[in-house]
Amino acid sequence: MNTAEKLSALSTPELIIDERKMMANIVRMRSRPELAKVSLRPHLKTAKSVEVALRLISTPKGPGTVSTLKEAEVYFEAGISDLIYAVGISPQKLPRVLALHRAGCDLKVLLDTPEQAKALIEASKAHSSPIPALIEIDSDGHRGGLEPGDPLLIEIGRILHAGGLLRGVLTHAGDSYNAVGREAHAQFAEKERLAAVTTAQALRSAGLPCPIVSAGSTPTASAIRSTEGLTEVRAGVYVFFDLVMAGIGVCKMEDIALSVLTTVIGHQRSRGWILVDAGWMALSRDRGTARQAVDQGYGLVCDVDGKAFGDLIVNSVNQEHGILSLRPGSKSSLPELPVGTQLRILPNHACATAAQFDSYFVIPENADAPLKTWPRFGGW
Amino acid sequence: MNTAEKLSALSTPELIIDERKMMANIVRMRSRPELAKVSLRPHLKTAKSVEVALRLISTPKGPGTVSTLKEAEVYFEAGISDLIYAVGISPQKLPRVLALHRAGCDLKVLLDTPEQAKALIEASKAHSSPIPALIEIDSDGHRGGLEPGDPLLIEIGRILHAGGLLRGVLTHAGDSYNAVGREAHAQFAEKERLAAVTTAQALRSAGLPCPIVSAGSTPTASAIRSTEGLTEVRAGVYVFFDLVMAGIGVCKMEDIALSVLTTVIGHQRSRGWILVDAGWMALSRDRGTARQAVDQGYGLVCDVDGKAFGDLIVNSVNQEHGILSLRPGSKSSLPELPVGTQLRILPNHACATAAQFDSYFVIPENADAPLKTWPRFGGW
Repeated sequence: MNTAEKLSALSTPELIIDERKMMANIVRMRSRPELAKVSLRPHLKTAKSVEVALRLISTPKGPGTVSTLKEAEVYFEAGISDLIYAVGISPQKLPRVLALHRAGCDLKVLLDTPEQAKALIEASKAHSSPIPALIEIDSDGHRGGLEPGDPLLIEIGRILHAGGLLRGVLTHAGDSYNAVGREAHAQFAEKERLAAVTTAQALRSAGLPCPIVSAGSTPTASAIRSTEGLTEVRAGVYVFFDLVMAGIGVCKMEDIALSVLTTVIGHQRSRGWILVDAGWMALSRDRGTARQAVDQGYGLVCDVDGKAFGDLIVNSVNQEHGILSLRPGSKSSLPELPVGTQLRILPNHACATAAQFDSYFVIPENADAPLKTWPRFGGW
Repeated sequence: MNTAEKLSALSTPELIIDERKMMANIVRMRSRPELAKVSLRPHLKTAKSVEVALRLISTPKGPGTVSTLKEAEVYFEAGISDLIYAVGISPQKLPRVLALHRAGCDLKVLLDTPEQAKALIEASKAHSSPIPALIEIDSDGHRGGLEPGDPLLIEIGRILHAGGLLRGVLTHAGDSYNAVGREAHAQFAEKERLAAVTTAQALRSAGLPCPIVSAGSTPTASAIRSTEGLTEVRAGVYVFFDLVMAGIGVCKMEDIALSVLTTVIGHQRSRGWILVDAGWMALSRDRGTARQAVDQGYGLVCDVDGKAFGDLIVNSVNQEHGILSLRPGSKSSLPELPVGTQLRILPNHACATAAQFDSYFVIPENADAPLKTWPRFGGW
């Protein structure tokens, strides 16, 4: 049975993984010679799937990165215990962090204020359970973290170290998603590296430990030249890739392993529209390619085998309707796609689109095998 | 215990309903004298919650509108049997529609092509189970449907009627969301009404039945002056309302019954930023106010009691980070909100934000009662 026949049994919209492409993406990143001297700590937030996570990590215990405590809880249940929760910790979340530690999970939290460090010390003492922490460093003005040189670094380091909680520094150049081309990403990688390494050195110069020096994002991990001084590199969306990553040159269109299966439900021929049953509820409202050189609308349309029609994009969406049309200025003609035709849409942003579904249908590496179903979780 | 104390026990982000505001929204629409002569068929897609649906509908059996077969299945399980599935039907979905009919659900489907009508006739005959259908009418060039005057109307009507499946016409002026003010919405309501009524008359003139003449959206149902010729009016998002609806004058800011509870997790004081743990995963990527007179970013920030700070909005988002800042040009000063402070964010688009969660926490009408939890479903 070929792929089209396997997919024809599905009610749409559904979320599809091409396992062969996914595994190639995983192997490509893992094999980068530039990453040979550091640990690769994949971000497990894109997939929110134990099956995908187990294929991403390099040992059964990890390491891995998470963006919610729910992820930490689910992945720890699956045996992945070396985790960083890479979002600033609030005091209200400490009871769940403590519960994970008591169960044996080596979950490291992130912070950038003395108040958070003190709350961590108090909770760790009160429960005789040390919660290790990384200090967040801002390498590109993108969101949280201390700028290198901020005197709070040593103050927070001392507070944490007094309780034995200081584990290192972490940075993420989120703005690398807005830069195009390998050279630009390599420069962001070097900014990340310098920010992490100089703050690690500052901590050590003050007599403080800094065993973990962590940096990374998919664009920077894909382009990094030197990892000197880093102990690990993080990256996430490379497991699936998406149109945003293709648009900034981090992957090829053919590397995108995630798509939304949809069905034609109508036409407005006088307007050049084809209507499908994947609206924003399935595709997400992400418009990450809107500011790129090629605006892909709400996604690029492929046939059921995953081959793009070229200029056919999801031009607009309602909750459960997608409206396909040719890209503005296209000289192609609209393909004839009768009601009932199945199509696959490549997403702007894999994290956002995947989040709209509670399972994956997986086109297996072994072409003779049937589709697999992998559960997916959400929430916090 | 006051609201702030009740909410303080929650781990964030979480989705909050103010039940008093929700019930007021329901009652206000239900009581509109302009709707006295028609049936109100609420759209149950915004809430995706049996508890909310049972408060929205006027009798235990409905009527109601759904946007997915999953909604139809869940609501029918709760006893709501008079349903319209208001998205064009694809042949692949007919087995699930048939199963609902066999179980006793009066689910009406929507179509606008002879091919869909023929597929419906075949499936109905093959299973001796008539699937009633409405013909979709396009009243504003927004997405699917036949324009009034399209000769396909009678052709489709005849195909359906031959199998006893023709139940009526339906239209939705989705572009009314882009119009501001009651007068503009009343004009859209009249466009909807004329499109539905003229096509119903065309069917009847051709000797075909048209028992249901259905039109509506929250803006048009809120402004409609004459319902003459209609049998029912549909509306959905009014149950919660949102910033988009407030921005076009359909509701007041104080009517918005839905919010996302979040917690301050950091600051970038030199940039005037406050970081919270509600990013796009919690708020959705919806930017529906971006083209309105007042751009609310990814949401308007309120204190934990639901009182807006005025100019404080969610200026940008990452997956699990929201960055709050004052609206551009604001002369206010940034409020002092320490790490750990709980806040509530009013959403741009209630349907999109609610979809990111699998339950609601409900601030009860009775101030002395504890918070309630209502489950929420997703999927298709």
